[in-house]
Amino acid sequence: MAKIIAINAGSSSFKFQLFEMPSEEVITKGLVERIGMNDSIFTITVNGEKQKETLDIPDHNVAVEMLLNKLTDLGIIKSLNEIEGVGHRVVHGGEEFADSVLITDEVLQKIEDLSELAPLHNPANITGIKAFHKVLPNVPAVAVFDTAFHQTMPESSFLYSLPHEYYEKYGIRKYGFHGTSHKYVAERAAEMLGRPLSQLRLISCHLGNGASITAIQGGKSIDTSMGFTPLAGVTMGTRSGDVDPALIPYIMDKTGKSAEEVIDVLNKQSGMLALSGFSSDLRDIEVEAEKGNERAELSLSVFASRIHKYIGSYAARMYGVDAIIFTAGIGENSDVIRARVLNGLEFMGVYWDPALNALRGEERFISYPHSPVKVMVIPTDEEVMIARDVVRLSK
Amino acid sequence: MAKIIAINAGSSSFKFQLFEMPSEEVITKGLVERIGMNDSIFTITVNGEKQKETLDIPDHNVAVEMLLNKLTDLGIIKSLNEIEGVGHRVVHGGEEFADSVLITDEVLQKIEDLSELAPLHNPANITGIKAFHKVLPNVPAVAVFDTAFHQTMPESSFLYSLPHEYYEKYGIRKYGFHGTSHKYVAERAAEMLGRPLSQLRLISCHLGNGASITAIQGGKSIDTSMGFTPLAGVTMGTRSGDVDPALIPYIMDKTGKSAEEVIDVLNKQSGMLALSGFSSDLRDIEVEAEKGNERAELSLSVFASRIHKYIGSYAARMYGVDAIIFTAGIGENSDVIRARVLNGLEFMGVYWDPALNALRGEERFISYPHSPVKVMVIPTDEEVMIARDVVRLSK
Repeated sequence: MAKIIAINAGSSSFKFQLFEMPSEEVITKGLVERIGMNDSIFTITVNGEKQKETLDIPDHNVAVEMLLNKLTDLGIIKSLNEIEGVGHRVVHGGEEFADSVLITDEVLQKIEDLSELAPLHNPANITGIKAFHKVLPNVPAVAVFDTAFHQTMPESSFLYSLPHEYYEKYGIRKYGFHGTSHKYVAERAAEMLGRPLSQLRLISCHLGNGASITAIQGGKSIDTSMGFTPLAGVTMGTRSGDVDPALIPYIMDKTGKSAEEVIDVLNKQSGMLALSGFSSDLRDIEVEAEKGNERAELSLSVFASRIHKYIGSYAARMYGVDAIIFTAGIGENSDVIRARVLNGLEFMGVYWDPALNALRGEERFISYPHSPVKVMVIPTDEEVMIARDVVRLSK
Repeated sequence: MAKIIAINAGSSSFKFQLFEMPSEEVITKGLVERIGMNDSIFTITVNGEKQKETLDIPDHNVAVEMLLNKLTDLGIIKSLNEIEGVGHRVVHGGEEFADSVLITDEVLQKIEDLSELAPLHNPANITGIKAFHKVLPNVPAVAVFDTAFHQTMPESSFLYSLPHEYYEKYGIRKYGFHGTSHKYVAERAAEMLGRPLSQLRLISCHLGNGASITAIQGGKSIDTSMGFTPLAGVTMGTRSGDVDPALIPYIMDKTGKSAEEVIDVLNKQSGMLALSGFSSDLRDIEVEAEKGNERAELSLSVFASRIHKYIGSYAARMYGVDAIIFTAGIGENSDVIRARVLNGLEFMGVYWDPALNALRGEERFISYPHSPVKVMVIPTDEEVMIARDVVRLSK
């Protein structure tokens, strides 16, 4: 009976989940926000009830100590010795990491070296790793990378049609993200279908504020919509997804912005926020579209259409598809988006049941039993994947 | 019996074709190259034989006068009065022109205003228009735009997920190109299928040194792979097609290039040239791939895969497809690329005959008669489209 903590650290926050393994029971979970600012917020769920506390937490080290004290103070664990492993989500593993890995000094150095590819995320992840190492120096720690699952992509998928030295010297290629989520839902889909993952062609739609679509053949990612960064692919909450690259200098010229600033607009002020003109949150947009707001309607149409087209594209990529999976906030909860995405795919064997689609949140099929291509909603669980990898690698 | 000249003018060249209308017979054709340089080359085909002449041609005006003199000197026409119309290919018609148009001073001004969207092309097209106007001031001239056919795209296809003012103030949207070619093959496809164009869903693959794929529903372009500029979409001879836009500042940072210079690399030193490492010409690459050159093989694989995925994407876009069309240099002549593009599309009803695919150049079906989705090779003819529009609009 091992207790494992899964951590997702940002620059001023971290989320935690404490698992009992191998049962995979979630003992407690919570998050620490506004670390290093005034009025930091510590939230922990005990026996299904949220406890929230506001106080000043100067840095990640203090936040981690506070968490561990809470765990014993609240009687969730008797002693820190019960914690047998810590798993850390790390955004970028580059080409170095095709799987999760036990963190050593050398591994930590490599994660630091990869910060150039994810300047906003890897340094924050490292802060989390170091803070836990300080308090639990003898507990095995494992890094689980967002990019690792996509390292199976073939060259013809991951290489851009750019001068070869850009790949060799600068690491410019498609990496893909949300790998832990895509992997989790692929494994669940195989279980639900009662078929070996090795024989399946799956299209996984991870649709949250960030969104990516992955073609998974035989359990391996062979293509994905995000690219060198998470900006590429479909329209997202505030991200543009793919645009003509020639637009960058044109926008620079028109607005006087630098290239970095233009990309910042594409990351933070574009997507459904820009299309709707009022919100990046799909729930708001659905409400307004229902009332007849034309730009809200346009946002839904663009978002769904981009995903719909990726499904056609990836079905072609795998010479057909056995199942389509919807996951993450929007994928799990928006029957409106799922309906628009799935509409008109009968030509490739997708027949779905509006009644099953209308249900919310729970894991299920939404295709008709006679549909050659199955469609499923699978709530994602990146944390349990982290906990599993900690158990597997810390033995 | 009207004689019509179709013109495609570049900055230092123009191509011409003289038609007898309405029979659409090509009376003569040719090109003038290296205008404004030493050793300009004038080539004209008379009775199937090419005549080539090297001399100094200082500007487009002189080139046009020379052409018209040749036509009478060689007895191709008796007098310039026989020429009843001139048609000019113009690359960018922006949102101003959804159809070809009789050129007036006002139209010419609009074409000039649109030069910002096509700085390399529209000014050259205007030079050609002015040169013919000078010599044939009373002959109707018609502009035929590469972008016009795509003006039927709905907002959900042509709008990028960018701040709305970028569209309203700066005209930033998807325009699409090769429209005259896509329109020609769509019309031919309907004739070959013996079905009204209004009832057809077509995917047209214009594959030359530039390449674009278009979804054509009921005879109207509803989506296309090129974007604000011809850089977007699939991998091409020297163009990268779509890449993660965040790569632009990253490449700038790594190479010290300006944004414009990076886009220049993406336009001129990328695509199959970069993938193969030795040529942008598909014929060279096919030869080397055949010999076992791995990077040549990779180039073919990437190029075909990008097109293959667009076909899946656009089939989804139209809820299915009735026919897939291949045209332009590569589309008409490369059985290797067609085979790779079509391979594995049985799941959506595409069954094709390798023996029919192996034939070269001629207009034909390459799908089996029992294939639900038809596949056709249709040599494009943008010049005849120009001549037809001149007749239609100059009456």
